[in-house]
Amino acid sequence: MVYRLTLAYRGTHYAGWQRQPNAMTVQQRLEEALAALTGEDAPVVGASRTDTGVHAAGQVAHLRLDRPLPPRALVHGTNGLLPDDIRVMRAETAADSFHARRSARAKRYRYRLVRATVLSPLEALFRTRVDPDLDVQAITAATPALVGEHDFSAFAIAGGAHRSPVRRLFELHVEEQGDRVDLVFVGDGFLRGMVRSIVGTLLEIGRGRRPPDDLPDLLRGRPRSAAGPTAPAHGLTLERVFYGDGWQRGLDEDADLETDGRDRTLSL
Amino acid sequence: MVYRLTLAYRGTHYAGWQRQPNAMTVQQRLEEALAALTGEDAPVVGASRTDTGVHAAGQVAHLRLDRPLPPRALVHGTNGLLPDDIRVMRAETAADSFHARRSARAKRYRYRLVRATVLSPLEALFRTRVDPDLDVQAITAATPALVGEHDFSAFAIAGGAHRSPVRRLFELHVEEQGDRVDLVFVGDGFLRGMVRSIVGTLLEIGRGRRPPDDLPDLLRGRPRSAAGPTAPAHGLTLERVFYGDGWQRGLDEDADLETDGRDRTLSL
Repeated sequence: MVYRLTLAYRGTHYAGWQRQPNAMTVQQRLEEALAALTGEDAPVVGASRTDTGVHAAGQVAHLRLDRPLPPRALVHGTNGLLPDDIRVMRAETAADSFHARRSARAKRYRYRLVRATVLSPLEALFRTRVDPDLDVQAITAATPALVGEHDFSAFAIAGGAHRSPVRRLFELHVEEQGDRVDLVFVGDGFLRGMVRSIVGTLLEIGRGRRPPDDLPDLLRGRPRSAAGPTAPAHGLTLERVFYGDGWQRGLDEDADLETDGRDRTLSL
Repeated sequence: MVYRLTLAYRGTHYAGWQRQPNAMTVQQRLEEALAALTGEDAPVVGASRTDTGVHAAGQVAHLRLDRPLPPRALVHGTNGLLPDDIRVMRAETAADSFHARRSARAKRYRYRLVRATVLSPLEALFRTRVDPDLDVQAITAATPALVGEHDFSAFAIAGGAHRSPVRRLFELHVEEQGDRVDLVFVGDGFLRGMVRSIVGTLLEIGRGRRPPDDLPDLLRGRPRSAAGPTAPAHGLTLERVFYGDGWQRGLDEDADLETDGRDRTLSL
């Protein structure tokens, strides 16, 4: 039986999602908890390989169990064995063909900023501080250039093994509420470090250190060194992964699911 | 020179505000940092003695320095010596008569709940999980009975040394946004554990385990054992302390101050 898991985690103390030889990762913790619960060594495949320190509110993963468990038991049993900075928010049985990464149609990431002289400890785990005089209007005005299908090489951390540097960004919104500024990205896929290096580049524009009309040129396959620095990981959260044909019309399979761990069957 | 400090902290790893012999507290960390910065052993007096695990977004404290420092230097110098879960958000020079606790006219606390089957790690540090079927309407309907001047003995943790158990609650709002439910308290003072034991009692009402009309009786000087349990500390944040005559009309001195650590003089 194939299961689809929706996961939330604070990335603060993890070297990212993907298993590594000498560092603790979310995938390893999750696979260990699932093995202890089910007695099976089932690998867990995540939709996104979130980097060191990056959080998730709605990472999706799948696994295959030879001895099926009710989804509800999978949720609460695994959570009982996980540290409290990782949680299975939901589990569903899925079609045999479901693959968390390959079936994904889009992902939504949120980068959180706060304009302040001092970063409040209540926000410090999930937001990056920027100076109060950051020009958010300039950032907002620059974002449309990034939307669409582009060669995002200038925004890919070296070391990411990508077949093609072309990705489609469906949306890039700036949400401002008081001192808090969120940059929300929806795309069909993201190169390694792409969201954070776009944020770092937009912050240069917001500080008046880079002309806003630099972006179209950067999207013509320029090297990583041409763009701005990579913004800190703790400001970034993977919010949601979208599946199914109708996702852009709000018709994805998630639409009628509730985050309550109830048993549900999901077909793809 | 007397200084007024506005402080924010995550209470997670502290045994509350007040210095204790065998546990680390926010007051101790702050006094140590200030002593290292100024070379003076100035005691810091806080407006509220927040309990173990309780957070603050706007705790206020005062201290007196023989050798004055510019407020901006006090903010950034102290922050450079503090762990990152405590921050001086702002400093102002204050009148000689200013006393963080005695001059306070009111305090605002926020208790954060989330209706969910599984508590997301992104909310777990600052919110308490409640079941999705919690009857928020019943809680909202019950709250007006608590507003006003009452004997809050039933809601005071034993061990609090209070001259009188009578306090005035100016406001108690229920703010609901999706699955998140906040209970916001404004009062002239709070007995030890008062907000959390009111929350624990309101949660009993919201679960149908206590009749809503119990509250008026509890406010007639009933013992602590008559009310509900004390809700967990991590859901509680001291948001703001109000000073000055006009605070109820929104005219408190804070109104035109920005949380940017700039030098300002505050007179009371």
